Amino acid sequence: MELLEICKRAKEASRKLGTLDTNTKNRALLAAAELLVSEKDAILAANEKDLERGRKNHMQKALLDRLMLNEARIAQMAEGLRQVAGLSDPVGEVLSMKTQPNGLRIGKKRVPLGVVGMIYEARPNVTADAFALCFKTGNAVILKGGSDALCSNTALVALLRRALLGEGVPCDAVSLIEDTSRETTAEFMRMNEYVDVLIPRGGAGLIRAVVSQATIPVIETGTGNCHIFVDETADLPMAVRIICNAKTQRIGVCNACESLVVHEKVKDALMPQLARVLWESDVKICADAPCLEAVRSGVAADGGAVSRELLLEATEDDWGTEYLDYRISVKTVGSLDEAISHINRYNTGHSEAIITESYRNAERFLNEVDAACVYVNASTRFSDGFEFGFGAEIGISTQKLHARGPMGLEALTSTKYVIYGDGQVRA
Amino acid sequence: MELLEICKRAKEASRKLGTLDTNTKNRALLAAAELLVSEKDAILAANEKDLERGRKNHMQKALLDRLMLNEARIAQMAEGLRQVAGLSDPVGEVLSMKTQPNGLRIGKKRVPLGVVGMIYEARPNVTADAFALCFKTGNAVILKGGSDALCSNTALVALLRRALLGEGVPCDAVSLIEDTSRETTAEFMRMNEYVDVLIPRGGAGLIRAVVSQATIPVIETGTGNCHIFVDETADLPMAVRIICNAKTQRIGVCNACESLVVHEKVKDALMPQLARVLWESDVKICADAPCLEAVRSGVAADGGAVSRELLLEATEDDWGTEYLDYRISVKTVGSLDEAISHINRYNTGHSEAIITESYRNAERFLNEVDAACVYVNASTRFSDGFEFGFGAEIGISTQKLHARGPMGLEALTSTKYVIYGDGQVRA
Repeated sequence: MELLEICKRAKEASRKLGTLDTNTKNRALLAAAELLVSEKDAILAANEKDLERGRKNHMQKALLDRLMLNEARIAQMAEGLRQVAGLSDPVGEVLSMKTQPNGLRIGKKRVPLGVVGMIYEARPNVTADAFALCFKTGNAVILKGGSDALCSNTALVALLRRALLGEGVPCDAVSLIEDTSRETTAEFMRMNEYVDVLIPRGGAGLIRAVVSQATIPVIETGTGNCHIFVDETADLPMAVRIICNAKTQRIGVCNACESLVVHEKVKDALMPQLARVLWESDVKICADAPCLEAVRSGVAADGGAVSRELLLEATEDDWGTEYLDYRISVKTVGSLDEAISHINRYNTGHSEAIITESYRNAERFLNEVDAACVYVNASTRFSDGFEFGFGAEIGISTQKLHARGPMGLEALTSTKYVIYGDGQVRA
Repeated sequence: MELLEICKRAKEASRKLGTLDTNTKNRALLAAAELLVSEKDAILAANEKDLERGRKNHMQKALLDRLMLNEARIAQMAEGLRQVAGLSDPVGEVLSMKTQPNGLRIGKKRVPLGVVGMIYEARPNVTADAFALCFKTGNAVILKGGSDALCSNTALVALLRRALLGEGVPCDAVSLIEDTSRETTAEFMRMNEYVDVLIPRGGAGLIRAVVSQATIPVIETGTGNCHIFVDETADLPMAVRIICNAKTQRIGVCNACESLVVHEKVKDALMPQLARVLWESDVKICADAPCLEAVRSGVAADGGAVSRELLLEATEDDWGTEYLDYRISVKTVGSLDEAISHINRYNTGHSEAIITESYRNAERFLNEVDAACVYVNASTRFSDGFEFGFGAEIGISTQKLHARGPMGLEALTSTKYVIYGDGQVRA
């Protein structure tokens, strides 16, 4: 189908989706879950084609793993659809209703956004996921997945549409742009007449490309150069536990800790023990001179030796780098002010934490650090829609408009004013 | 000052502005109001230079009037600043605070956006207005006004900055881009590193240009092709009152009614009397054939005659035109469905009204018409921040992200998650 036709149909479908009741939407989600499982062979066959092409093109192992579906992963997708069916529906909620002096009653009501465009990489699970969240919130979604997953996505979307048709719901609630060329993608990003919002999901390059090319409003998600600051009052064993968790519990995710900021008064007490624990997980430490020295002398005092591989000198580049790897940078500061300035300069507005026992330092950090999520004495790994209790996540917004931080169903809604009069005119 | 330097300083200032308490902000707003009044001669002298240049360049009378300042208008500006000082401060409000099963307390707190860019035309009053609203919400604002108002804006911004300095507040809370060239404006719109949001205020051309060129997130404001639908159950005298108010109470504003949709069952009873009343205000009627005929035969039955100037045949172009003039289009429909389709096709997502006595029609119209403000039995002219009780307005958003409809102070804020832990790590 032509891009323009896809967009027009999605817009048309969105009119109807916005008025569906929750029961109908849930029935369709459950039917889709069932169909994915019962038609798993078709999905696996399509996925095998993508994998074969990937292997032929020497796709990286990690990427092949992301692309790969199996019975368990299809069951997970289906379970995801069922979970979204179980969430409460934000559409229609009246957020406020006030009567003006002239008798007009003005209400603010939650409504779908309309048509959502998702641009993502070769992760077929995003296909089912994005459909479920957009559909539950009464939106039509147009998917533009990575070309490497085209066969898988085509099979998945065909099944989702079949499930919708079976429930008497407009199947254009979900559609796939099969032409994954740059030109068509660029054209898609300028379809302001039909698409209300674009949500890119993927690496920094993808997101930058969408932000710079799109004229449709974009919700930026993703990149996280997250810091943990250990102040001079910190409970150091707690600091070690939290830092290790934030760095190593899962590598390569946006809410992992990439950079440590250490008050000079605690560097000697903290750094040697922290280094030992991080090294157990093969994490390389890129530290500035004072913290480098703290590690070296601490380890030497214990009669140990430090490998050149595991302890490196940080350069200016390290402060701004989201490693997504077994590596952490360490910056020494002389004050909370210096810590806050450093973090505000190099962070990406995602998640930042302070480890402190000081009320004043905690409050200042929470107020003055500019990020979607600011923590006291907890791991940055909690920045996540499920951990926040939203029951779902469409991404983590690192911008300040519309939605900031983990985005659940509400982030996929807008509002409208509904005004009840009895003949009022303006004087 | 260079553009880059302006942006950097604004960002720097925004860090401090976000932590100012309300009393300090209010004192600075009141000081600014006082200074505008006491230094009115300097403002008027600068404005006279702009006016002189405008007259030399044969600027239109209406534009000259918008540009012109006098003692009363300066007093109004100052009064605007005082009013904003009187509004309650949304910054710091905690919108929710929940404790997760693991003991993490997760709060959602209202915070400033950071740096707001305003791009507008030659209306010096917007300068003071935008400053007041952005400053009250803890944002720095960078102003890019029309070149025709450059001297006026330079004088105003200099005074605002002087007032801030006098109160010990960073004067870079407000700055003006004095280089109004296209190149600099285009560069400004891509300063994503320093500017969090752009708000264009002005005609459709200005807004289109910003949307298509900016990489910074934009809040679209403005254009309103607003409809009123008179259904078959409408109280017709009420319909006439509301239509006349929405069309003529003020011409050339975005919430004025531009197009009428009339159920065929009431066209004969409604149109002749409506035409008579609209013609009293010199409003031209561009109607489709059925309503044209309804007016003609109704007027003829009364023994009257219709001038060719006041009654015209509508063309396809009329449905999509925001006249901002003494003109209204009229479309006949056979059903509510047809009315809703017509409105959803041609409206600009601003304000739409139905005149009806039917509960079912009212509900369907409110639910199915896709616009920021949907009315039952009231004039579209109420779409306004003051009429909605916000005490202020930075514009009317016609998009669905972040803010929709009249935008008050809250639209100039974002949120951040503040998370209080006591050592939690992710399992």
